[in-house]
Amino acid sequence: MPEAIAENSIGIVKPQLHHFDEALQLDCGKTLEQYDLIIETYGSLNADASNAILICHALSGDHHAAGYHSMDDKKPGWWESAIGPGKTIDTNKFFVVSSNNLGGCKGSTGPTTKIPGTDTFYGPDFPIVTVKDWVRSQQRLMQKLGIPKWTAVIGGSLGGMQVLQWSIDYPELIDHAIVIAAAAKLTAQNIAFNEVARQAIMTDPEFHEGHYLANNTKPKGGVMLARMLGHITYLSDDAMREKFGRELREGKLNFGFDVDFQVESYLRHQGKSFVERFDANTYLLMTKALDYFDPASDYDDNLVTALQQAKAKFLVISFTSDWRFAPERSRELSRALVAANQDISYVEITAHHGHDAFLIPIPEYLAAFGAYMNTVAAKTENAENKKASS
Amino acid sequence: MPEAIAENSIGIVKPQLHHFDEALQLDCGKTLEQYDLIIETYGSLNADASNAILICHALSGDHHAAGYHSMDDKKPGWWESAIGPGKTIDTNKFFVVSSNNLGGCKGSTGPTTKIPGTDTFYGPDFPIVTVKDWVRSQQRLMQKLGIPKWTAVIGGSLGGMQVLQWSIDYPELIDHAIVIAAAAKLTAQNIAFNEVARQAIMTDPEFHEGHYLANNTKPKGGVMLARMLGHITYLSDDAMREKFGRELREGKLNFGFDVDFQVESYLRHQGKSFVERFDANTYLLMTKALDYFDPASDYDDNLVTALQQAKAKFLVISFTSDWRFAPERSRELSRALVAANQDISYVEITAHHGHDAFLIPIPEYLAAFGAYMNTVAAKTENAENKKASS
Repeated sequence: MPEAIAENSIGIVKPQLHHFDEALQLDCGKTLEQYDLIIETYGSLNADASNAILICHALSGDHHAAGYHSMDDKKPGWWESAIGPGKTIDTNKFFVVSSNNLGGCKGSTGPTTKIPGTDTFYGPDFPIVTVKDWVRSQQRLMQKLGIPKWTAVIGGSLGGMQVLQWSIDYPELIDHAIVIAAAAKLTAQNIAFNEVARQAIMTDPEFHEGHYLANNTKPKGGVMLARMLGHITYLSDDAMREKFGRELREGKLNFGFDVDFQVESYLRHQGKSFVERFDANTYLLMTKALDYFDPASDYDDNLVTALQQAKAKFLVISFTSDWRFAPERSRELSRALVAANQDISYVEITAHHGHDAFLIPIPEYLAAFGAYMNTVAAKTENAENKKASS
Repeated sequence: MPEAIAENSIGIVKPQLHHFDEALQLDCGKTLEQYDLIIETYGSLNADASNAILICHALSGDHHAAGYHSMDDKKPGWWESAIGPGKTIDTNKFFVVSSNNLGGCKGSTGPTTKIPGTDTFYGPDFPIVTVKDWVRSQQRLMQKLGIPKWTAVIGGSLGGMQVLQWSIDYPELIDHAIVIAAAAKLTAQNIAFNEVARQAIMTDPEFHEGHYLANNTKPKGGVMLARMLGHITYLSDDAMREKFGRELREGKLNFGFDVDFQVESYLRHQGKSFVERFDANTYLLMTKALDYFDPASDYDDNLVTALQQAKAKFLVISFTSDWRFAPERSRELSRALVAANQDISYVEITAHHGHDAFLIPIPEYLAAFGAYMNTVAAKTENAENKKASS
């Protein structure tokens, strides 16, 4: 339980479930005849519906980006540091929408929900979804919410990839694209890490070819390994050194295979707690969406041509010690945006936190991000004033 | 079968098994009452026994460093590129000794050998061994072979750690210490990767708490995962990009969890083939030896004091794209050697191959390494000439 909810928190929030009846054609060739999206919103939509922001989540994220579900919650949403009244993404100014992606495991239709009209979990039969599919489903959501245009779409990591896809697929529907700690496509090394994580899950004997729920079990070991591995790649070598060094948990070597070093204890704990809150099939789907993301592939593998479709202004942010999506990937993207004649600001933040930095309230980061958001807000306000006075 | 063995190969070699009856006290507090070491030697010991070189192997290496065991062998020893007549480690000049470490799985006493006087495999009951223990066992081997002093001890990665320990523990017994792609201790990130590999093996249901041989099985899945993960860290991001990029194995996305990208296929193959040739308990032991290595810990955590014990000349080599044991780790070691007033040459090789570079015949690497070995050989020859003329 939060002792007291901080004044600059959005406070208690309530998720909403939206049902969609119109069939959604997916990139894999399959069709979802109907589906649900669970979302949260923070702040209020202004009179001319010009202040809406979409937040896109990363691999293990969800719709719960800010605030608390109840006074019993130990932790707020995953981006509490950035979203709230007076914060970088200021809920006094913006109407913020955050949805759990299709294929997720926190309420949107996915492997842990039941096939409509049956008592059977989708499980491994939930189709492979892509970043493009998500963006398509988010555009439907936007229509349903009566939002004509996003003043900004914002996301980090896999969320940043959705932002990029938004700017290319729906250029008329997005004013600002804020792409944080992302890349225009994965490297072979990224794919390799994802593949090891997938193999860990799929070779777990409790996986049952994905039908573990029907077998009343879970591939806990595999998910734990995947998460442990993930955590190594989210932290920088330096951050790990600073956080753990070679510190021994019991002050001495044990000459056995139990925990010797603090870093081992940390990873085991992270792995075990993740097992309780995340679904294995969703993890598999999310990693494939990452691997498959490559917006240039629709434009003869030419990223510049792909980005020429966009009409948004871009803010691209990277972090010096991020080796999962290294600054060089953001620089590549920025160069392609410049070549595509786009309005682009690129900020490289000096931070030792690794990929995780995008979730951390680093002053230099929030200053740059916040300054940009102020210009976004100013435009929104001007638009409203103009309308009011016209 | 090699179509024809290259002229500059040492050719067909035969391992020798050496039995040791004198008890070996280990760092973990346990004692090996007796043990075997399997070794190979290449070249001839000269009259005054002044031309002997010890090769120390890395995590998955063994005593078979050069040549072939039979005409049916598909591959030569693991360092064929560096060891042989006329090669960098010239077997026309040097007597090269290469032994499988204690705890290994290729013939030296370890988890896959039987407890003396019983029909039971050591399995998980083989004690945790350290780099110091190995060096102690290699010093016994040296005595048995009638070698008064190594003209050089050479190793890469975990092998380089043994070289460092040799220089500190037996300063009188080693003239040159050649430490390649190593570090004076692991970082938290290194330990973290090892821990994920260990968890992959130990959580495999076929592990049976290490007694898999007694259960007629093997933790194949876990060992495969450990090796896949290892391979990612042995290659650089750039090397992976060059080798695989985002190339699709079948030219298209499959929208499933079978192999899409070439890099996935490569990793699965590497993992599967490793399972056939390596023992899980040995893998666990080797990773612990890596984690525990920290020669400074015997000297109040002062690496400079530790290195002040040494009397050898040092050659330290690192590779620019090695992120498992980054050049910065070799630079740290080199700075400590300078501070310890040692005779040290440091070479940083520009190479995109990652940690694997130490096994690859990169011209700049072999040129620097070879030039150093020529000075080692010259001293050996001078010593012999002096003796002959006296």
